[in-house]
Amino acid sequence: MSSGDKREEEDNDRFPDGALRLRNPHISEMEQDILYHLALGSGSHDLQEMFSDVRFVCMGGTPKRMEQFAYYIMDEIGYKLPAGTTLLDISFQSYRYSMYKVGPVLCFSHGMGIPSVGILLHEVIKLMYHAKCRDPIFFRLGTCGGIGIEGGNLVISESAVDGLLQPYLELPVLGQMQRRPAVLDRQLAHDLKNLRREDDPFTVTVGKTMCTYDFYEGQGRLDGAFCDYTEEDKLAFLRKIHAENVVNMEMESLCFAALCHHAGVRGAVVCVTLLNRLHGDQVSTPKEVLNKWQEYPQMLVARYIKKALGLPVAVPQRSHPQV
Amino acid sequence: MSSGDKREEEDNDRFPDGALRLRNPHISEMEQDILYHLALGSGSHDLQEMFSDVRFVCMGGTPKRMEQFAYYIMDEIGYKLPAGTTLLDISFQSYRYSMYKVGPVLCFSHGMGIPSVGILLHEVIKLMYHAKCRDPIFFRLGTCGGIGIEGGNLVISESAVDGLLQPYLELPVLGQMQRRPAVLDRQLAHDLKNLRREDDPFTVTVGKTMCTYDFYEGQGRLDGAFCDYTEEDKLAFLRKIHAENVVNMEMESLCFAALCHHAGVRGAVVCVTLLNRLHGDQVSTPKEVLNKWQEYPQMLVARYIKKALGLPVAVPQRSHPQV
Repeated sequence: MSSGDKREEEDNDRFPDGALRLRNPHISEMEQDILYHLALGSGSHDLQEMFSDVRFVCMGGTPKRMEQFAYYIMDEIGYKLPAGTTLLDISFQSYRYSMYKVGPVLCFSHGMGIPSVGILLHEVIKLMYHAKCRDPIFFRLGTCGGIGIEGGNLVISESAVDGLLQPYLELPVLGQMQRRPAVLDRQLAHDLKNLRREDDPFTVTVGKTMCTYDFYEGQGRLDGAFCDYTEEDKLAFLRKIHAENVVNMEMESLCFAALCHHAGVRGAVVCVTLLNRLHGDQVSTPKEVLNKWQEYPQMLVARYIKKALGLPVAVPQRSHPQV
Repeated sequence: MSSGDKREEEDNDRFPDGALRLRNPHISEMEQDILYHLALGSGSHDLQEMFSDVRFVCMGGTPKRMEQFAYYIMDEIGYKLPAGTTLLDISFQSYRYSMYKVGPVLCFSHGMGIPSVGILLHEVIKLMYHAKCRDPIFFRLGTCGGIGIEGGNLVISESAVDGLLQPYLELPVLGQMQRRPAVLDRQLAHDLKNLRREDDPFTVTVGKTMCTYDFYEGQGRLDGAFCDYTEEDKLAFLRKIHAENVVNMEMESLCFAALCHHAGVRGAVVCVTLLNRLHGDQVSTPKEVLNKWQEYPQMLVARYIKKALGLPVAVPQRSHPQV
């Protein structure tokens, strides 16, 4: 795509003020829009008043991790809650996803796998539209298996492929297979990579991510309930995809990339490796170490947000006593 | 398949005492097996001591709903906790799924979509194997959209198909597309249907379930972030699949059926309809009514469990003051 085409496509995705257009003519004709899995609605809530200041949407697998991220980013950007208040899980009534708002940063848990992150993305994109948010940037902060990268290091996805190395999301729609390219913003990926510091305990690799529909057989593990192949078959497959520049495997990037791209939203996937799949299948690292590692994507994304907000990147705006 | 073939296949799936064999030769060679997403392991826990008495595995979408089901089934089967104890979410350290044990009944939340329920099934099937559970029966208690069935009624899946009406689960494994038939136990489905009582506020339909990878475009809704089709296109599609005996749509049955069948486990999918998709897309029924409806699958499955345990089906063994 030439940069001229790209420009034109971006113009179609946005109103002149940067607010998203929706690629769905039906929504504007509806009396109200219920964001069922977020427990919000355009009729029951003033979504513009609640969310129009959002500039960054951060999502990750578990509610616990994203709650921790919400408190972490609060300190990092120096966001102050009014006296006598605390963060509330805005979507607690849905029991599906969790959702925290820290000024311009919205934090979600997305569960596991493409369908779960897909439902969330549909509703968050609609939320951005109803709230008239301007040029929001979406981040997925996740965990992954490294291919040739040891545990405890970061991978930023340059693009995503499925288990057959196809660079698009396939979805049956009205009985026909639909394909959407799983394209991510390369500039954003490289800007994030450049925020690594010399003294960070992790490396940062920008590369291709394989996104699968299963954690066991779908990722060539030997330790699922079923396995019809040998260790040699597995290693031959992992080496083959590594030769195709796949550096990690996870379960959401294909949908995240395809839906962000289709909506005209800049998106980045930043994952920490929990192990090097060339050396094993089981995640046997102690819980405390895994918890430490899961802070690494948060650190990099927090630096990006601080820089974008014009805050000093190197230091938090406030440090909180550990509770 | 003739009944002779079936008999032989069942023999291969089980040891003579009814305990599951695993279709994975690698597990028995491993020093320990970490069930990562359940926060359990064969090295760290005595899984046989903890779980060998399990006969029924019940799973549903949200942690909250399955916690409620755990307390409900406790009263229904009259299971008593020792004084001074309460139920514990056994997998709370994973932050991925919730897991409650009430005597012979194990209750899980499975999140949303095929990948999420698939990871859980791999680990629960391995758990049944490690614990040497005999002839466990798996139930999914869910919500769905009805096709020609109004909200607040039950559908028991007779079989599952994907969004292209294909009766199998497709999954890329080591770069090759694998297909597993999405077969459910017909006898179990009909035994469940026969437990409906005259005075129940719901109907029970046994029929084909379409299982999709997306809630919006994947189910032909007009109210997602994207939509390239008209209301007429949608209705033509829904009428077409209805003519093919599809009576409901949800997002987990294909994987649940395929993995249970491959493991030689009897499984049933019992869902309550939240709306009739022939009349709309949005779930706009009040929360209190939806909560009431979500008790219906629990009622039917509880009757099955009580009958199997030799308890009177019509009345709970104990009634609890509402907390």
